[in-house]
Amino acid sequence: MTRTKVAVVGASGYTGEELVRLLLTHPNVDLVVATSRQSAGKSLAEVFPRFAHSKNATALRFSDSGAKQIATDASIVFLALPHGLAAEFAKPLLSAGARVLDLSADFRVKDADVYREFYGHDHPAPGLLSKSVYGSPEIYRDRIREAQLVACPGCYPTSILIPLRPLIRRKAIDRKTVVVASLSGVTGAGRKAEVDYLFSECNESVRPYGVPKHRHLSEIEQELSLLAGEKMIIQFTPHLVPINRGILTTICAEIATNVVKMDPAVVFRSAYGEEPFVRLLGDARLPDTKDVAGTNFIDIGWKIDKRTNRIVLMSAIDNIVKGAGGQAVQCMNVMLGLPETAGLT
Amino acid sequence: MTRTKVAVVGASGYTGEELVRLLLTHPNVDLVVATSRQSAGKSLAEVFPRFAHSKNATALRFSDSGAKQIATDASIVFLALPHGLAAEFAKPLLSAGARVLDLSADFRVKDADVYREFYGHDHPAPGLLSKSVYGSPEIYRDRIREAQLVACPGCYPTSILIPLRPLIRRKAIDRKTVVVASLSGVTGAGRKAEVDYLFSECNESVRPYGVPKHRHLSEIEQELSLLAGEKMIIQFTPHLVPINRGILTTICAEIATNVVKMDPAVVFRSAYGEEPFVRLLGDARLPDTKDVAGTNFIDIGWKIDKRTNRIVLMSAIDNIVKGAGGQAVQCMNVMLGLPETAGLT
Amino acid sequence: MTRTKVAVVGASGYTGEELVRLLLTHPNVDLVVATSRQSAGKSLAEVFPRFAHSKNATALRFSDSGAKQIATDASIVFLALPHGLAAEFAKPLLSAGARVLDLSADFRVKDADVYREFYGHDHPAPGLLSKSVYGSPEIYRDRIREAQLVACPGCYPTSILIPLRPLIRRKAIDRKTVVVASLSGVTGAGRKAEVDYLFSECNESVRPYGVPKHRHLSEIEQELSLLAGEKMIIQFTPHLVPINRGILTTICAEIATNVVKMDPAVVFRSAYGEEPFVRLLGDARLPDTKDVAGTNFIDIGWKIDKRTNRIVLMSAIDNIVKGAGGQAVQCMNVMLGLPETAGLT
Amino acid sequence: MTRTKVAVVGASGYTGEELVRLLLTHPNVDLVVATSRQSAGKSLAEVFPRFAHSKNATALRFSDSGAKQIATDASIVFLALPHGLAAEFAKPLLSAGARVLDLSADFRVKDADVYREFYGHDHPAPGLLSKSVYGSPEIYRDRIREAQLVACPGCYPTSILIPLRPLIRRKAIDRKTVVVASLSGVTGAGRKAEVDYLFSECNESVRPYGVPKHRHLSEIEQELSLLAGEKMIIQFTPHLVPINRGILTTICAEIATNVVKMDPAVVFRSAYGEEPFVRLLGDARLPDTKDVAGTNFIDIGWKIDKRTNRIVLMSAIDNIVKGAGGQAVQCMNVMLGLPETAGLT
Repeated sequence: MTRTKVAVVGASGYTGEELVRLLLTHPNVDLVVATSRQSAGKSLAEVFPRFAHSKNATALRFSDSGAKQIATDASIVFLALPHGLAAEFAKPLLSAGARVLDLSADFRVKDADVYREFYGHDHPAPGLLSKSVYGSPEIYRDRIREAQLVACPGCYPTSILIPLRPLIRRKAIDRKTVVVASLSGVTGAGRKAEVDYLFSECNESVRPYGVPKHRHLSEIEQELSLLAGEKMIIQFTPHLVPINRGILTTICAEIATNVVKMDPAVVFRSAYGEEPFVRLLGDARLPDTKDVAGTNFIDIGWKIDKRTNRIVLMSAIDNIVKGAGGQAVQCMNVMLGLPETAGLT
Repeated sequence: MTRTKVAVVGASGYTGEELVRLLLTHPNVDLVVATSRQSAGKSLAEVFPRFAHSKNATALRFSDSGAKQIATDASIVFLALPHGLAAEFAKPLLSAGARVLDLSADFRVKDADVYREFYGHDHPAPGLLSKSVYGSPEIYRDRIREAQLVACPGCYPTSILIPLRPLIRRKAIDRKTVVVASLSGVTGAGRKAEVDYLFSECNESVRPYGVPKHRHLSEIEQELSLLAGEKMIIQFTPHLVPINRGILTTICAEIATNVVKMDPAVVFRSAYGEEPFVRLLGDARLPDTKDVAGTNFIDIGWKIDKRTNRIVLMSAIDNIVKGAGGQAVQCMNVMLGLPETAGLT
Repeated sequence: MTRTKVAVVGASGYTGEELVRLLLTHPNVDLVVATSRQSAGKSLAEVFPRFAHSKNATALRFSDSGAKQIATDASIVFLALPHGLAAEFAKPLLSAGARVLDLSADFRVKDADVYREFYGHDHPAPGLLSKSVYGSPEIYRDRIREAQLVACPGCYPTSILIPLRPLIRRKAIDRKTVVVASLSGVTGAGRKAEVDYLFSECNESVRPYGVPKHRHLSEIEQELSLLAGEKMIIQFTPHLVPINRGILTTICAEIATNVVKMDPAVVFRSAYGEEPFVRLLGDARLPDTKDVAGTNFIDIGWKIDKRTNRIVLMSAIDNIVKGAGGQAVQCMNVMLGLPETAGLT
Repeated sequence: MTRTKVAVVGASGYTGEELVRLLLTHPNVDLVVATSRQSAGKSLAEVFPRFAHSKNATALRFSDSGAKQIATDASIVFLALPHGLAAEFAKPLLSAGARVLDLSADFRVKDADVYREFYGHDHPAPGLLSKSVYGSPEIYRDRIREAQLVACPGCYPTSILIPLRPLIRRKAIDRKTVVVASLSGVTGAGRKAEVDYLFSECNESVRPYGVPKHRHLSEIEQELSLLAGEKMIIQFTPHLVPINRGILTTICAEIATNVVKMDPAVVFRSAYGEEPFVRLLGDARLPDTKDVAGTNFIDIGWKIDKRTNRIVLMSAIDNIVKGAGGQAVQCMNVMLGLPETAGLT
């Protein structure tokens, strides 16, 4: 079996490092390019001491290759770049025939106006928006298979869309009453030298941020509206908590008035019973980020609150794995016709 | 000026230790009794090395005195006991004429049936329920002044009631739409030897618990209903986060349909402009538990979300200070006619 | 190829859980027994939610089987029991022909008098001491291959013996000048309900303990003395630091007077150049526990201090993997003639 | 009683913020100037939300005043600037008659050659070195009283010099055998935007650094040599641990051969029995950073190890208080003839 050559562009951040970790040990692909402007010339093993034992990590050096060269060297390219830059980089890659998995926000939102509203600048490649597939395998598996451009979802959207989807599709909840609180680990802020994310600023600190209009709302509401068949607007409050990895999301919504009796266990088992990375906790257990750390799983729990006629959905993911690099590799597996769990267990 | 003699019953837990810390340096009272079954005979300085320099902490030994002796030795008694035990201990203290500040849940709920529903056993002293005053100075200052029995609020209720109160009283929000997510530090679980609260179980972990009917709901809804003048039921999801101290609470509620325009800054300044321990952040800054750690302040921020017609209220307190021992000392100051900030700054 | 059946006795602690994690995915063995008194009857997936996706973890239930039954069901048995209990359990297992890997301290010290001195009670099975092999593959690989009873080293000894060994054997350092400071994560204290290891007692705390005569000194000095060919006594100060996993050890020793010039890089490469789990950092980089977390590696760095004529050795391991379960699996691989890295990468 | 006007230059770092905290509530001084280039124009309350309730913090704005203006406004000036800059700033302040407490390393080392060796550049004001007094009140109280220029010690030196001093002076230990391991919280790295000190780089990480020749060795060995009356060189290994505040130092040294019997309790009580900020734990208890967090205390414990003929000294301080701002305020109190504990309890 021939092995696929893959590249990671912008490989020195947390998401890039996680992609490197997964791709170095993936049974069916070879990581042949990893770019990083500030680390160019150094081996992966030097920059990431945790990979020091890996022969591939010792042999492979960071480059600052351009898109054309990368498209020659690899057939699958992961972009772990800031938004704006990612779209610019994607254009020549796509023209050169590479298949691209973009982990930035650049191709998630289909509407260039919404992009401008939430990201504050014009979209650098609006013509490509219609070509991209939102990289949530649980929702778009079939379209991902054929896609040339996959827009991997953000970490918050992943933790919100997967639990809400079966209930929205069945119209089991009142779509106007969705209130979400998410708690994110600090890797979510990226490996950027900013005072706000210093250890001593985050340790012994819990704080909301991005209230009331966090950028991820654009893609969350787009996808929820597609599922609902009508415009959906939700309340979303992200919080920063002092853990490295993990997002815990709690979603409250009123049960729709026409629903006489709902058994969430049946609903979720029907939607996700066969999904390799969705673990249903039932209503006997609640999710905990430490149970998913380092894995590609999403754990989902729920409670019906009879006093308030609401359902409380709770999910946990590793923001850097299922919320970023792991889900991207899962998409790649779909694109290549590999077992979806290859390299992820 | 004569100094008041005070006692702390059950002084070896986190709340008891914080009371001891505040009372040892309080300018107007003398801590003369501290009880602890397991530490009886040892000095406070031995058990709490952080007080080793304090002459009073070196001189005072933990006792396991009974209520009668304590009522003879002190005129103000703080109870930092588990619920159930606290009510039993309070009865003889009150009979003997002591003024009691109870930090357990035993006297917070006015209705013995609600107590049984939420705490799973009959109330040990239902006859005293009508005598107790809920120890929130911002709400009940005048009644606390004369009270013989003060039921100090729980940490979650404090973080929820103070922000919600002005809006409920003005009927500025739709009382059926209140959804609360609270994030608590681990001292909230008490100094109990339980595997669930070991360092390695809580570190790198974020998890909801007590869903959907946490015990504190009983007092929260009682007080909200009193403010609203009608029955209020809310959605409340507590989470455990890996910090020692602090509660961060995020409250979402729809703005009432009859409200044309609301300026929360005006509402909050009118309600709390003179309060010594309420800090209003306005809508320019969001609260952070690290800004209130070790203090008796509650920081309150807010945002109006025009997209959803909701208000998002966010508060931060130190769960062991404003959420427990500090608020109790604040109540004591009110009871004794002292400056409300005495010993708290 | 036939698969070997293995058992874990005492599988509900941190070490037991890690053994379970490694054995569930090991390519050459089947975990057929896991015992736990308090969890008997429950599946592994129920007790450890992080294994919820594993079919084997769902199928296998904790038992409280006795030694005879276990020896019938499995040919390799890991004991993750408290010291004292482990020796009692090992006796019938060995009589029944099972090969035993004990992770307690019971068979590490060869001299029953030393055992009594350090552990405070008579050894329960002194006759077995001479049969056990100290389970450090880097030192005793050949003897482990044939052993029926392997005494897996403690976490501190592993982090100290591997770096010191090449220097002791070459008499490159003055054996009377060895001073060690070790910093351990809190899983090292076990999953025991004790107040000292609560989150709020360990977070924002750094503290030495077990000074000056920690129990692990008994095995450390035994092994060092064997290497030196004469009695060795060292200074050892363990500290508890607020991380889940990891031990960082710093060793200082004077360079022996007869050593004219020593290149540690040559010494270490000669000793460990072929070892699969020893990573030599050279003197350009210093170890960090986060680089070895979740792995079976030991990272070793060094600096020669010309000002003091000392060498400073620094090592990092995951205390639960290379310091416990991972090293035990490595020993098992040696015993079974498997690739030493099987199931460990 | 007239109140003294004081200034803090470089007030936006961790040390500056701690100075501000202590000076805002100090009973005998008024903080009248606080400078910060990046925060100039903002009030202290805006920049440090934890001081939001303080009228002084609300009234006082950060400035970027020059030395002359500051010397006009205040008679005592604290410098919390990077080394190099501090000396440049001190020169005009001293010329203008201000008394200066410098918290950088610029005036700690008496020998400009040693300064160059350890700090890598020429000393900016070598002529002032002889005028400065090392700001350790336990050692130099009398000279601090009259000093115009006080060089406040580093955090590591404070944690090492105070425990070692009585033993060195009595020649109770062999001065060639001192081996020190120190564990520091992350505020020690300052409030600088550097990737190495991001939360996700420090959390779940323990690592040595600055091996074998950390800059603080220059002042530690200078002061030890002065105490010993002969040149002293020690082994010193600092480590970074994931706490906000605190240094835990463990010192091992051989007991001098001529010492027949030493009772450290007698030695330490004789040296520090009257010191307001030294707490002697005896050999029954070991220090813990959490017991000194937020205070100006140094806790000292010890153990005699008969097996090795060494003494093990252990100390704990808050690196930002006794290791920086608190000790500076203690020095100021000495300079002004105030009670040494003023504003520090």
